[in-house]
Amino acid sequence: MSYPAETVGILGLGLIGGSLARALRESGFSRRFIGYGYREPSLRRGVELGVIDDFTLDLGELIDRADILVICAPTLVAADLLRQILGKLQGVENGPVITDAASVKGNLLAAAKEACGGNVPPRLVLGHPIAGSERSGVDASDAALFRHHRVILTPVEGNEPAAVELVRAMWQSTGAEVVSMSVADHDEVLAATSHLPHLLAYALVDALAQSDASEDIFRCAAGGFRDFTRIASSDPVMWRDIAIANRDALLQSIDLFSEHLGRLRQAVADEDADGMQETFTRAKAARDQFAAILAERGQRSKAE
Amino acid sequence: MSYPAETVGILGLGLIGGSLARALRESGFSRRFIGYGYREPSLRRGVELGVIDDFTLDLGELIDRADILVICAPTLVAADLLRQILGKLQGVENGPVITDAASVKGNLLAAAKEACGGNVPPRLVLGHPIAGSERSGVDASDAALFRHHRVILTPVEGNEPAAVELVRAMWQSTGAEVVSMSVADHDEVLAATSHLPHLLAYALVDALAQSDASEDIFRCAAGGFRDFTRIASSDPVMWRDIAIANRDALLQSIDLFSEHLGRLRQAVADEDADGMQETFTRAKAARDQFAAILAERGQRSKAE
Repeated sequence: MSYPAETVGILGLGLIGGSLARALRESGFSRRFIGYGYREPSLRRGVELGVIDDFTLDLGELIDRADILVICAPTLVAADLLRQILGKLQGVENGPVITDAASVKGNLLAAAKEACGGNVPPRLVLGHPIAGSERSGVDASDAALFRHHRVILTPVEGNEPAAVELVRAMWQSTGAEVVSMSVADHDEVLAATSHLPHLLAYALVDALAQSDASEDIFRCAAGGFRDFTRIASSDPVMWRDIAIANRDALLQSIDLFSEHLGRLRQAVADEDADGMQETFTRAKAARDQFAAILAERGQRSKAE
Repeated sequence: MSYPAETVGILGLGLIGGSLARALRESGFSRRFIGYGYREPSLRRGVELGVIDDFTLDLGELIDRADILVICAPTLVAADLLRQILGKLQGVENGPVITDAASVKGNLLAAAKEACGGNVPPRLVLGHPIAGSERSGVDASDAALFRHHRVILTPVEGNEPAAVELVRAMWQSTGAEVVSMSVADHDEVLAATSHLPHLLAYALVDALAQSDASEDIFRCAAGGFRDFTRIASSDPVMWRDIAIANRDALLQSIDLFSEHLGRLRQAVADEDADGMQETFTRAKAARDQFAAILAERGQRSKAE
């Protein structure tokens, strides 16, 4: 039997890395999974669970053995790992294909260009699976995590077409829907749909927690508030790093939001009933349409 | 058998009014329920469903027959109904106790004082059940809607203690947890936990829907975005009216939030990792504590 990529190196074995290894083993995309990371207990646990076959603490060894390297570490660690990998591949002709699963793409592309004298490594294809779970760590890994979820690839000029195809095929074999966009578009879209909402939720909960009425506020809040603020329970270090990595797109996104909020504030202050109703109605229509997209995706998922 | 209030007049027979009538019939708080409203089909449907015994389109008749009047209409309609009721009760000594279920209290208190030459009617006790459903209308009414939910009463100086007690006993008989606070505190707390989040969700979805990348944005958004923006699917007219009725507290709330968002924006711009992590960590702690309160409430509800 032949495999699209015999050996996969997973850098960072948590929920995402572990779920990817499980999915690729199940789909028959690869037959050997080698873990690498800074936390040996996670790697040992991965072997115990049968998620990976083996692990190494030697990055050079990993690079030598793997056909494809998938960096599944948090945003800033991912950039650091990418720099190390590219450093070791200087002058190597046929190295492994390299991809990742981090939340921001611009900082990784910049790190790669810096490590390669301004050029994009032909076999580096950045990607981002839009999937997650409230649980974390390799124990929570799940072969079905990516099924019917989007994976965004951000290929660039200079990429080897075969490398792009391999990364696309890898994610498709997990059951994900793979789409492509530019690095800038990815970071803008993610700033808008994920990074900004996290910042707003953190800002709101922090503002209320510091107010004099905070006890009454949390005692009397209901379901709408619960849903709206759920993402404020996310990992502070992870979101700090994402905010740093996607600084420019996030700032643009904050400014766009603030401008719209400022207009709504003015409508409230002016008791501009028509203006408010117009905005709320337009927003409701967009949100209802988004809910329909999600419902359709859910239907497809159930129909299997 | 004797009833705390023999006859209840429900003004506005939708989800809230219908659920209240069902709950009070089940608890034995009252034995007769009379509907009143502008939409006769809802009232006919209420009789058909056995939610109310009877209805009238004559406000004077309703006032004459009821021991307690509960205004269950939307915010601005509620203020209008209250003015009409108080107009008809001018000079009457022992009228019915009056209460309501609207989302804002300050505008109703102001309307009442205006209708009564600056005085608070002794038998008017404003209230607000923090409960709802994605469904609406009398067909969705449910005797268990208020169970384990908060009801906030805002009694004022000049209220007859017996009237306050009757309204408290009414809500307690539905299984709700009744708390009291001042009108100003109520409106401030609700602005923070409900009215502001709705405005933020509307502003965010509207900003994104109008952006050039809106198609990619909604196509690539995931679970966190879905939860965060769910309330942007709420009724635009209802929220327009709430924003008008609670204008001052809402503006304060927007300004407090904007100040905090501005500080976070600065931290992002400065790549102030410590500042961001501190804010995110504080917010996460507050949100986790809130989740614990909700989980405990859920446990009590299941234990029945």
